[in-house]
Amino acid sequence: MKKFYGGVEAGGTKFVCIVAAGPGEILAQERFPTTRPEETIGKTIEFFRPFVESKQVDSIGIASFGPVDLNEKSKTYGYITTTPKPGWAQADLLGSIQRGLGVTCAFDTDVNAAAQGEYYWIPENRELDPLLYITVGTGIGVGGIVNGKTLHGLIHPEAGHMFIPHDLKIDPFPGVCPYHGDCMEGLASGPSMAKRWGQAAETLPDDHPGWDLEAWYIGFMVSNLLLNFSPRRIILGGGVPQHIGLIDKVRKNVQKQINGYVKSPQVLENIDRLIVPPALGNQAGVMGAIALAITR
Amino acid sequence: MKKFYGGVEAGGTKFVCIVAAGPGEILAQERFPTTRPEETIGKTIEFFRPFVESKQVDSIGIASFGPVDLNEKSKTYGYITTTPKPGWAQADLLGSIQRGLGVTCAFDTDVNAAAQGEYYWIPENRELDPLLYITVGTGIGVGGIVNGKTLHGLIHPEAGHMFIPHDLKIDPFPGVCPYHGDCMEGLASGPSMAKRWGQAAETLPDDHPGWDLEAWYIGFMVSNLLLNFSPRRIILGGGVPQHIGLIDKVRKNVQKQINGYVKSPQVLENIDRLIVPPALGNQAGVMGAIALAITR
Repeated sequence: MKKFYGGVEAGGTKFVCIVAAGPGEILAQERFPTTRPEETIGKTIEFFRPFVESKQVDSIGIASFGPVDLNEKSKTYGYITTTPKPGWAQADLLGSIQRGLGVTCAFDTDVNAAAQGEYYWIPENRELDPLLYITVGTGIGVGGIVNGKTLHGLIHPEAGHMFIPHDLKIDPFPGVCPYHGDCMEGLASGPSMAKRWGQAAETLPDDHPGWDLEAWYIGFMVSNLLLNFSPRRIILGGGVPQHIGLIDKVRKNVQKQINGYVKSPQVLENIDRLIVPPALGNQAGVMGAIALAITR
Repeated sequence: MKKFYGGVEAGGTKFVCIVAAGPGEILAQERFPTTRPEETIGKTIEFFRPFVESKQVDSIGIASFGPVDLNEKSKTYGYITTTPKPGWAQADLLGSIQRGLGVTCAFDTDVNAAAQGEYYWIPENRELDPLLYITVGTGIGVGGIVNGKTLHGLIHPEAGHMFIPHDLKIDPFPGVCPYHGDCMEGLASGPSMAKRWGQAAETLPDDHPGWDLEAWYIGFMVSNLLLNFSPRRIILGGGVPQHIGLIDKVRKNVQKQINGYVKSPQVLENIDRLIVPPALGNQAGVMGAIALAITR
């Protein structure tokens, strides 16, 4: 008999709950908007309750928006910590679901879970540690697998806020990050594109110069991640990189920026195998949550 | 009876060979300049031969300058690869020493070994994974321990070449990196300071503005590493950071640059426990080589 697991992709905009044995083996799925914590967590518990009661599911993975507390020794382990999202600061996401259902859950950031999903479910990726997963959308986030496990530390990576070169003569836009102005997220998130060009990123025509600028900044981010982690795979997820031709522009920019310094065939020649879109498409997060439940 | 190990710190300027049981337990030590590979490797083999023949040493760790091939499945595993140093490109450092002495050696980059040394020998650091070791001197390098092991990947980290903001109005110096111009190494290595100010870094007076600029750039590098890895310890080694007051300036710049975004007491309050000089001083590399030999 097939074994099923629970997965929650807890996003700032919507929650996706799933019961599955793996990609393409989905028993049930539901998505609902992220409202107040009590309501949203309540719906999550109600979704899983019948599967837990019938003993079809005894392990659930939670992939959460952040920042979150990942320190298992901490009193606030599994809490969302300092988000501006109303009601969610100091929300006990993990504990509420565990108590509501009486099952132990695995917990990680949404981007670490997506990295884990791509690593666990895609056989080719199992050989490609370190593996990084980048999302560029409303925010910019990075998760990763290094030496077989997801990246945890003092907190968890916040590489979306890394500092990159910003040539004010080419791009005088000051950036939108309330903390840093022109950090990566300030210059290249979806909202920064919308503010710079006065229209939503997805409405910019294919030949708009905004796409070249975006690919230039994402190039710097990927180049820095390449120099920092020496990853064997870099996955570019989220809405913005899926714009037609963008990932290929990023690859060319990384080659231009690194300028032959990293003498690896995966950078010099086969960069289309190094920097790739998610093999799981928009299921990387939720299938990552399932992988967390399995590997917990 | 105490067990002794061999350690080699193979630098671009000098080799340090040691037989030791740990810090302060050194049986023999020798240092000699890095000349042609045959001569330098020959001296290394001669130093260790009596200890190997008397069976006092059966394991040697090698901490090498780079870039090196760390892929154990590769035909050129343990080679120095593309260095401009005459004679050393494609030199089989690991294999030559192993064949010459008939013992198996552990092999890693000098900065990964230094990270391993600080992690292995300093009890407090065992709890501080991820741990990063930065060296700022003739070049800039970064090594690290993540999830219990040193950082390997496509090649190995080359974070000294990361791209950081460069405000040409404040610092019009174009940088000295032959690949990238104004990457981190191009702007902040010892040679870049010498070229920018027309005198060697170590001769700049304490109140020279060059030190503030240097601390600003090192701050960006440390901030980016903090955002990328969420490390629990960042060790600032190499000659430049040991200038009086520099590490403290770097700490203040990191707080200014991160600007409250990473809400950890180790960043907001106790940053003097997060960013530290090497506990092993200038022995981090060679004691790292000993740790490599032990943990191999």
